[in-house]
Parts: sequence; C-alpha cells; structure tokens
Amino acid sequence: MNPIIRAEILTIGDEILFGQIIDTNTQWIGSELTGIGIRTVRKTSVGDDKKDIIAAFTDAGKRAEVVIVTGGLGPTKDDVTKYAFCEYFGSTLKINEDALTLITAFFAKRGRAMTELNIQQAALPDNCTYVPNQWGTAPGMWFEKDGVVYVSLPGVPYEMKSLMEFEILPRLKQRFVLNVIQHKSVRTIGIGESFLAEKIAAWESALPDHIRLAYLPHFGQVKLRLTGTGDNADVLNTQLLEQVDLVRPIIDEYIFGYDQDELESVIAALLISQQATVGTAESCTGGFVSHRLTSLPGSSAYFQGAVVSYSNELKMNLLGVSGDTLAEHGAVSEQTVKEMAEGARRALGTTYAIATTGIAGPDGGSAEKPVGTVWIACATPTETVTQLLKLANIRSINIEMTSTYALNLLRKAIIKSGQI
Amino acid sequence: MNPIIRAEILTIGDEILFGQIIDTNTQWIGSELTGIGIRTVRKTSVGDDKKDIIAAFTDAGKRAEVVIVTGGLGPTKDDVTKYAFCEYFGSTLKINEDALTLITAFFAKRGRAMTELNIQQAALPDNCTYVPNQWGTAPGMWFEKDGVVYVSLPGVPYEMKSLMEFEILPRLKQRFVLNVIQHKSVRTIGIGESFLAEKIAAWESALPDHIRLAYLPHFGQVKLRLTGTGDNADVLNTQLLEQVDLVRPIIDEYIFGYDQDELESVIAALLISQQATVGTAESCTGGFVSHRLTSLPGSSAYFQGAVVSYSNELKMNLLGVSGDTLAEHGAVSEQTVKEMAEGARRALGTTYAIATTGIAGPDGGSAEKPVGTVWIACATPTETVTQLLKLANIRSINIEMTSTYALNLLRKAIIKSGQI
Repeated sequence: MNPIIRAEILTIGDEILFGQIIDTNTQWIGSELTGIGIRTVRKTSVGDDKKDIIAAFTDAGKRAEVVIVTGGLGPTKDDVTKYAFCEYFGSTLKINEDALTLITAFFAKRGRAMTELNIQQAALPDNCTYVPNQWGTAPGMWFEKDGVVYVSLPGVPYEMKSLMEFEILPRLKQRFVLNVIQHKSVRTIGIGESFLAEKIAAWESALPDHIRLAYLPHFGQVKLRLTGTGDNADVLNTQLLEQVDLVRPIIDEYIFGYDQDELESVIAALLISQQATVGTAESCTGGFVSHRLTSLPGSSAYFQGAVVSYSNELKMNLLGVSGDTLAEHGAVSEQTVKEMAEGARRALGTTYAIATTGIAGPDGGSAEKPVGTVWIACATPTETVTQLLKLANIRSINIEMTSTYALNLLRKAIIKSGQI
Repeated sequence: MNPIIRAEILTIGDEILFGQIIDTNTQWIGSELTGIGIRTVRKTSVGDDKKDIIAAFTDAGKRAEVVIVTGGLGPTKDDVTKYAFCEYFGSTLKINEDALTLITAFFAKRGRAMTELNIQQAALPDNCTYVPNQWGTAPGMWFEKDGVVYVSLPGVPYEMKSLMEFEILPRLKQRFVLNVIQHKSVRTIGIGESFLAEKIAAWESALPDHIRLAYLPHFGQVKLRLTGTGDNADVLNTQLLEQVDLVRPIIDEYIFGYDQDELESVIAALLISQQATVGTAESCTGGFVSHRLTSLPGSSAYFQGAVVSYSNELKMNLLGVSGDTLAEHGAVSEQTVKEMAEGARRALGTTYAIATTGIAGPDGGSAEKPVGTVWIACATPTETVTQLLKLANIRSINIEMTSTYALNLLRKAIIKSGQI
C-alpha cells in the first residue's frame, strides 16, 4: 500500500459556529475524499476571524497533505478569508481577469445586474492557481505550501460540489499517488444496532485488518459499511463480496439492499419489473410517503398519485371508508387503515396502495391510543396486510419512522405478490 | 459586559470524518450555547483514535472554558472515547451503580433484553460527575480540569438534545457568570442575498458594535439575524426592536415573519384567525407541500387533505381538470394548474387550495418547457392566482423551491382575502 494521504476539512463562518446553519458540505467532502482514497483525519470550523483562520491553516498543514477550505467567501462577507490567505501565503489581492470574465458572463446569462460586491469576488490572492467556478460567483483557489495543498471553495453546496467533482478531485488524483479504496454496504431494516452487532460479532472480529466495518443507523435502518484499502480494485472488490457472502445468511431476513440502494429505489425496481403501480392514502404522514416515492427521477412510471385524508370526510368521500367503521373503531384503527388502503387502490387505480393513520403527536393521544400509535396497511390484488406501530412522542420522527415502515411493508408485499 | 465564555465543540467518530453521516448535532449545540451567552469559537471532528482525541482535548482546553464532546459512546464502539477520558483526566473505568440502575430500568420499561454491550455502557471514568440520561443508554459525563469544563454526551440527537436541555445548560448557567445574549430575526422571501445586502447597506453599517448581523439564505428565503450582547435583556431587546423598526420600511415587501416564524406557522396563524381551511393538489411536488403544511402540531385544525395527481387520469378523475385542457395546453400549463387548484378546492371542500405542476427533472424537459418549468396556483373564494417559476436542473431543489413559492403564494392570497 502507498502511504495514506491525509486531509483536513476547514469550514469558515460564524453562522456555522453559532448554529445558524447546518453544515452538510463537510459530510459530502469527507465521503468524496474517502471515495478516491484520501483519509480525512480532522474537520475544523472557525469563525470569520483572521487570526483564528490562520491558526487553523497552520495546524492543519502540520497534520495533513490536503486542506480543503469552504465558506467565508460570500458576496456579503468582509473577505476575511481572502485576507487570511494573503497573509498565510504572502500574497496580495488582485482582480483576476479570467474570473471577472466568468462572473460577468454568469450575470449576463441570467439577465441580472452585477453589483460592486460581485465584481470584488474576482479579486484573488496573486499566487493562487485560479479554479474556474462555472456554477456561481465565488472562484475556487488552489495553493501549495511546504508540500501541502490548500483548496478554497465557496460554501454554497451546489457550487462547492460542482467544483469538487469537476475540478478539485481530478487535480488531487493527479497530484498524489493514492491507495485504492473500495466500499460495500449491506442495508438492513427492522433490527437495532446493538442486536445486529451481537448477531454478527464473530464475523466482525474475523474481518481482515484492511477491511473496516461501520454501523450507520438511521430511522429504523442500519447500514453496515465495509471499507477496504489496498492497491487493486478488483482484488478488493472480490474480498468485500466474500465478506458480504459470509454475513448474508446470518441476517438475511433484515437485508433490503446493498450499497446505494434505498427503500425507494428497491421498490421502484420491483414495481418496474412487475409493470405494477402504487399510490398512497395518508393521514398521519400527511403526504410524506408520497413525497418519498416521488423523490426519485422517473417515478411517474409507477407512481400514480396519493390522497392525503386528514379529515374523516375525505376518508369517506375520496377513499370510501365507511362511516360506521370510523364511528365504531375510530380513525386510528386496523379497520380504518384497511379500508383506506383498499379505497386508495380503487380510487387511484393502482396495483398496490399503502395507507397510514395514527397519532403523530405531540397532542391528540389518549390512554387507549397514546401518541405514537400508528396503523399502516398495504393493499395488493389478493390481500391487505396491516401492521401496528408503537412509536415515540416526537412528531417529525413519527412521520419519518411511519413512512419507512410503510415502505418496507410495501416492499415485502410486492415481493410476496411476485412469488405467487 | 462580563468576559465572554468561550466554548469548543468536539465530535468523535470515523463516520463523521469519512462522510457517512451528516452532523446536525453541533449546529444545535452551537445555537443553544449562543442562546445562553456562550460563544462557540471552534468546532472540531476527530476519528475514533485515542491519540487524536486526547490531542483535541488538550488543544480545546487551551482556547476555551467549555468543551462539549459528543459521539464515540455507542454500544458498538470500542469505548475509545472513555479510555481517552481516563488517560486525559487520570481516571479508571468503573461500573457506576446509578447509571446501571437507570439503563436496566430503560430496557425493562421497553420490555427489551439487555445485552452485555449495554451493561458496559454503565462503566464510567471514576472521577467524572455522572449525568443521568433518561432518554437512552449512554450516560452523560462532566469533568473539570484546570478551570475548564468538559462535558461528554452521546451522539444520538434526541438523547444529546434532552441531556443538554435538562442537565447541561442549567449546570453551565450556574457554573459561569454569563453575558446576556438576545436575538431578533427578520425573515424575508423573494430577494437574493446580495440584493438584500445592497438595499440595507447603510442601515447595516450604522449598527452599533454590540449588535451583529448575519445573512442566512435558505431556498429562496434570507433570514436576517441580529445578535445583541450586553448585560440587560430588556435594554437589549429594546435596542434590537429599534433596529428592526429601522430596517422594516426598506424591505417591507419581502418580510413574511420574525424570529421563529416559518412560512408554515405564519400560514397556520392566518388560517386560524380566518377560521379557514386549506388543501393541495400536487403534481411535481408529489405531496411535499402537504407534508410541510402537516409538519406542524395542530395542523388538522385547518388542513383538510391533498390530492397528489401524478397521472393525467387522476387530474381528471379526482380534480376535474378537463381532458380538453390537458390535450390543448399540456399538464404543465397555466390552464391546467388553475383547474387543479379550483378542482382541489371543490373536491377537498376547503377555503383555499394550492396547486403545483411542473417538470422537476432531471428528465422530461423540452425546448419549449425545459426542466425547472413549474406552474403554481392558489384558488380562493373569489379568484385564482397563478405564477410561473423557472427553476434549475436539480430535482430535490426544484421540489423544495416550488413548495416554498407555493406556500408564499398561499400566504399572500390569504392576506389579500382577509383585507376584502
């Protein structure tokens, strides 16, 4: 193996420290660096303060070969980041003509006026390599000092990602001799992290040193991610697949997919292969299941539509739930969810239909049906299956968990239908 | 003013560095610390490596009075964080009986079996102050060394937040003499960050030193957040309100709310005050507008339901859009969106109805109607207003932006209706 190239990610901005925005950039950057064989060893966020920024440059340069800097470059910033670069790299700010041309074209194309703040975005430290930003107004910058590469990117996620993908990652692959990193993930649903860990403990402790395992839990799912490091992609992939083959029989009933598979994409593939369609009837999830099913490009091939029936009137009028059922069992009941799913299948004209009804909270619970009581159902051409969930007291989590369990119920129903 | 108490936030875990999960914890922690007058000066993430963790403790302790550590404590971790604490604070791990009692009760209440991994979660460094975690299985810990407070919290967001809110923030307020921090935010929609900045430049540069302004853009909205630091909350609040009164006339047409207001909550208040109801008819947003309207507790008071009509059949059958309209103008047209909104108002029996139809992408565009072409409409008792959006090529952003503009169209329609 080659020596491991280490990276640090540095984000700049008071808004990140003071908790005014969620930083999703560094997760993405870390993932991309991992993908090309660069190991992120530290992430740091500092405020819009030149002294703090320079101290962070200095520290990071001692520990890593690559320092990725994002943020601190917006049109309403005081350019403190650029002045920190100038001081650290011994340069002065100067309008970069290529950058100015690109920024001018950016505004012209959109028919928008340029402000003086936008022009100043073309002023760069005179000893950086200018990295053109086709996707926004803040240029990228590439510096080298004492064998360490420093890259500066705007904080706007779309611009940062485009610059990384099309400019920075290719340049890093050229600049360094990198190890090959390969991943393989096994996606599970319906088993908690610690129970999963106990089940696969023997397998896990027998993993070779160059293959590492991570448990990544997320709303009822756990992703088992294997990361292999070596110098031959084919050999690594074979070794990772061997490990997957070993663990599969132990946890087969919980596996719904691999790698980039999501419940939505697995369901999409199943529906397309059956030339089948789906729709939803939602009460407590308020359209969130429908949103998830339509979040994939091309979902119109199998998704027909949804009825969100918050009121009992709409459960009756649009889905045909009987007034007697609602009166006798209530809106949150097995009988109602069953009639919702079957009614949705009729009203939407689909092969399958999912239904949800429950008390998402934080109010509306009773002793008999506390907050978190949720019924879900899936109607198929031959039967309707139902499931009772007992969730927690947090509305957003209940909506998220209900949608995940409902999609999993659908997934299992489609598989079963296909086997008949 | 009292000396500013500085905090650093330290997250532990390879999964954060390698980009396997998004860190939302530190945003929340930064915001809560700001709220009680503690200034976060740096955030750092290191991997599950004892040497790196101890180095980070040491560095943070030199710069800050408070170090909040999260993560590295899950049942499937190798307890590297606890051993790092032991080495740094000179302690040894010992089962804490109070912690064990609470963990045992936690599992008993849920009728779940305890694993050996769960029992070991009660083993704590013997010189920490044990902080009970009522919400999960990993205890909180509080250490003091050389006048610096170190707090260790689990990484599970719900547990971390509960521990912070009920245990750590109250203890920090007792332990330190803190400045008073007050915030006031002005929420705008429909104007870009740099244009907003130019409009309010004179006002911004006249702000007193103890009041700082941040621009926080998010999908078509910009939040202007004023932060005042002082020693009297009433005086600060008055000063902040004076500044809001000064800026309001300059940007009045773009302001939709203040502070914690969201489009959803502003709309909720308007609908409740008019005793009116709303529903949606969604094509390209696939239920996301409905999801946003039902994300608030108590939304059943004004939200009736939604029809997601992905197919033309459902646009006709459930919403009454005419086949001629679809044939002549297509599904993505002003005529169709108008009929969808009016049909939804009838079918759902609501005062107002929003409709969306467009090409979310990445495929399905044409020269005449490229990806990102979206029509939105709002039907009221007296009229139907429509708007054409020209968005980008990214599906998830198009769905998010369309929902925001549709909610804003609804907000303006409700206000106008109330003035008739």
